Amino acid sequence: MANPTAAMLVIGDEILSGRTRDANLAHLAGRLTLAAIDLKEARVVADDHRDIVSAVRALSTRWDHVFTSGGIGPTHDDITADAIAEAFETTIDIRADARELLAAFFRKSGVALNAARLRMARIPDGATLIDNPVSVAPGFTLGNVHVMAGVPAIFQAMLESVLPSLEGGAPILSRTLRVDRPEGEIADPLGQIARQFADVSVGSYPFVRQGRFGSNIVFRSSDETALGAALDAFAVHFPDGHEQ
Amino acid sequence: MANPTAAMLVIGDEILSGRTRDANLAHLAGRLTLAAIDLKEARVVADDHRDIVSAVRALSTRWDHVFTSGGIGPTHDDITADAIAEAFETTIDIRADARELLAAFFRKSGVALNAARLRMARIPDGATLIDNPVSVAPGFTLGNVHVMAGVPAIFQAMLESVLPSLEGGAPILSRTLRVDRPEGEIADPLGQIARQFADVSVGSYPFVRQGRFGSNIVFRSSDETALGAALDAFAVHFPDGHEQ
Repeated sequence: MANPTAAMLVIGDEILSGRTRDANLAHLAGRLTLAAIDLKEARVVADDHRDIVSAVRALSTRWDHVFTSGGIGPTHDDITADAIAEAFETTIDIRADARELLAAFFRKSGVALNAARLRMARIPDGATLIDNPVSVAPGFTLGNVHVMAGVPAIFQAMLESVLPSLEGGAPILSRTLRVDRPEGEIADPLGQIARQFADVSVGSYPFVRQGRFGSNIVFRSSDETALGAALDAFAVHFPDGHEQ
Repeated sequence: MANPTAAMLVIGDEILSGRTRDANLAHLAGRLTLAAIDLKEARVVADDHRDIVSAVRALSTRWDHVFTSGGIGPTHDDITADAIAEAFETTIDIRADARELLAAFFRKSGVALNAARLRMARIPDGATLIDNPVSVAPGFTLGNVHVMAGVPAIFQAMLESVLPSLEGGAPILSRTLRVDRPEGEIADPLGQIARQFADVSVGSYPFVRQGRFGSNIVFRSSDETALGAALDAFAVHFPDGHEQ
């Protein structure tokens, strides 16, 4: 059976202006690979209500899970929760349980739960809260969309709250072999191997290091026997390949 | 007049599996901001022909420019050029000028121009070549889509070949002020300022540093006077803000 699929939606002008370098996609990609959920697509959109709504609709219709990052804080440019509600044609309002989480947290630190902070308790109707052990303000899951913060430490913590509830597929086994030759020299036999072993994904990733070209060849499969056979075939053609 | 718009399409399984951390989006974002071209959207898709075709169509229809990275090398998983040709409903074949570039390069280094390397001379009909000063194999521009390599050094070199030919808009001026207070404390006056100065984009980016919350406030505008006025208004509310 095929693995569950997923997409990521990164929300925020700061990524598109180059001000902030997104770190959440790479983190999510690595964690989903371990969980045997196939990340199939990612998008980055600006803080624009209509763009968020249409990306959420497109991704949540096509893939099993969607993970979003960004736009759930207290400021005027945090518009993700409202966009998610609209994407699912549901209402949104301050919710008692989320408000209580925030109230308890701010009471303890002697900080006012003002109108801006209360915005973080706005949760679309029908959503489940996602625990935020870093700064309390929760994320939420609505339908198949998991809405999380953009700050990497909080994104990562929320992801760990969500992952245990998701069903994964067969774990993907991965082996990487490096060949210190340019892709153009190895492409023909590599293509043959890729065609021969249909259950193994064979990716070739060129690099330039100290002015020399080399290739990392990544073999991925959930079938250990097929993976071993493909590696054996590779070793025949490329005895100079070494494990990375 | 509004600035020209752009989107990026990152092509490659390796980004989605977490094996490789994309570096090209952040680089492109920074360069386009300097060129006064607004990056509005980015997508990452797998090495899947249909996914590439449909993303290219969606992005090139909506935005003024599309920049792609990845999938133009010699191996079996390099399928970008064919997908671009299909997206524009044109043909693709080995082109004489691209072939000659490769032949001259490999002749000089005494390397065979084999069938795999010749794949890098496959250029869609009607495209213009993009110079590759690093490893010769060219990128190309077809319609409003600029097709470039995934290896960061080559992507960056190709981008510098393309950018001078593109018309930019009014340069965006940007100022960042840091306030060592959590977003929840500054959100209300900040929202007022954002509403008051419609020509200035005001973004708030929270951070956690050594366990304390702070906010970077980014003001962006092509109108220097408006930008100055927004900063003055900000200083009244937040005398503790300091330039980053």
